[in-house]
Amino acid sequence: MRRLHHLPLSPFSRKVRLVLAEKRIEVELVEEKPWERRMEFLLLNPASQVPVLQIDGLTLSDSGAICEYLDETVPEPKLLPNTPAERAEARRLANWFDDKFHHEVTVNLLYERVTKKLKKSGYPESARIREGVSNIKFHLDYLDWLTDQRRWLAGDTLTIADFAAAAHLSCLDYVDDVDWGRSDNVKDWYARIKSRPAFRAILADAVPGMPPPPHYADLDF
Amino acid sequence: MRRLHHLPLSPFSRKVRLVLAEKRIEVELVEEKPWERRMEFLLLNPASQVPVLQIDGLTLSDSGAICEYLDETVPEPKLLPNTPAERAEARRLANWFDDKFHHEVTVNLLYERVTKKLKKSGYPESARIREGVSNIKFHLDYLDWLTDQRRWLAGDTLTIADFAAAAHLSCLDYVDDVDWGRSDNVKDWYARIKSRPAFRAILADAVPGMPPPPHYADLDF
Repeated sequence: MRRLHHLPLSPFSRKVRLVLAEKRIEVELVEEKPWERRMEFLLLNPASQVPVLQIDGLTLSDSGAICEYLDETVPEPKLLPNTPAERAEARRLANWFDDKFHHEVTVNLLYERVTKKLKKSGYPESARIREGVSNIKFHLDYLDWLTDQRRWLAGDTLTIADFAAAAHLSCLDYVDDVDWGRSDNVKDWYARIKSRPAFRAILADAVPGMPPPPHYADLDF
Repeated sequence: MRRLHHLPLSPFSRKVRLVLAEKRIEVELVEEKPWERRMEFLLLNPASQVPVLQIDGLTLSDSGAICEYLDETVPEPKLLPNTPAERAEARRLANWFDDKFHHEVTVNLLYERVTKKLKKSGYPESARIREGVSNIKFHLDYLDWLTDQRRWLAGDTLTIADFAAAAHLSCLDYVDDVDWGRSDNVKDWYARIKSRPAFRAILADAVPGMPPPPHYADLDF
């Protein structure tokens, strides 16, 4: 049985869900609140982070390592391009979102607004929210520059960079923190990735007590 | 001309320097203070982070993407193992150090003690230092567990996981923040990697006004 331990509004879990769906790999989803540090979960991943994927008799953690594994073992469709130079660009951008965007935007907005509430660990800090709101503009402008030059973020083909970016943006869109009016290029790119079958399950996510804004699941947003 | 833009006490720069040296790829080292946000450097890497590698007519950034590129284009010696499962484990551990260890330990100790001084951006916060000193114990114990079971961190062969871990630990050792007495297994593993020719340049690093402790460059520490 293939099983993904995840959290609905974890961008790293969403990235892996998108890659699994794009490759048509069916998995059982098991929700895990990593901050509870359950012993059974710590035995699966001592980092106590989602996602964790149980597949092929293995227990895999770290979303980057999981995506590389899936692309190596289920080659169709390929989510890393053909040449070393193009692969370096796809990995650079995936890591840009999972590292830089995550710490500058996702942590300040999503974790302040949602994770703190779920963890019951306090209230959002307004200074952090302000920082996140300011930082996301810079990142949307960088995305505008990329999508102005390229069909997909890393080049001509859809790669893990698109899924990493869309995973973060879809979580932030769930809490209505993305200004889609800022760039037509970015909106067009997101509309294209949002309309893929792989995105359906993510658009159906619902966190109890936190409904998404009406445009969240709308393909014509 | 191959050129690496780096900073001597950046663990991400050191990881790439170790991989370059292990593969015997000679590069010109150019020191870059990324916080100065020089326009010429921002054009090379809009994330304004070291390392940036200029090689094969390309400009590559993100240390993870760079290491994958180098392992794909210069296969000897291979720094990712042969099977997808083993590669997933090597990447998981490399990312463990570059993400979890970095934020829990390196940021609290090295950045408080060194980077703030270099940037002239204030004094070390004692609460952060205490947190880093506490967190590194947990990570050394995890390293002890790994090195008790395996010859190298991810298995039988030397991989990028060892270089990621050694890059962070060598920076922390430069400021004398590693208690090598905590685990004989970890000390033996570090002694093995420290004695490799690839490590020589790193042991010769000197930051003006911040001499390392005497044992830093000693192979018999």
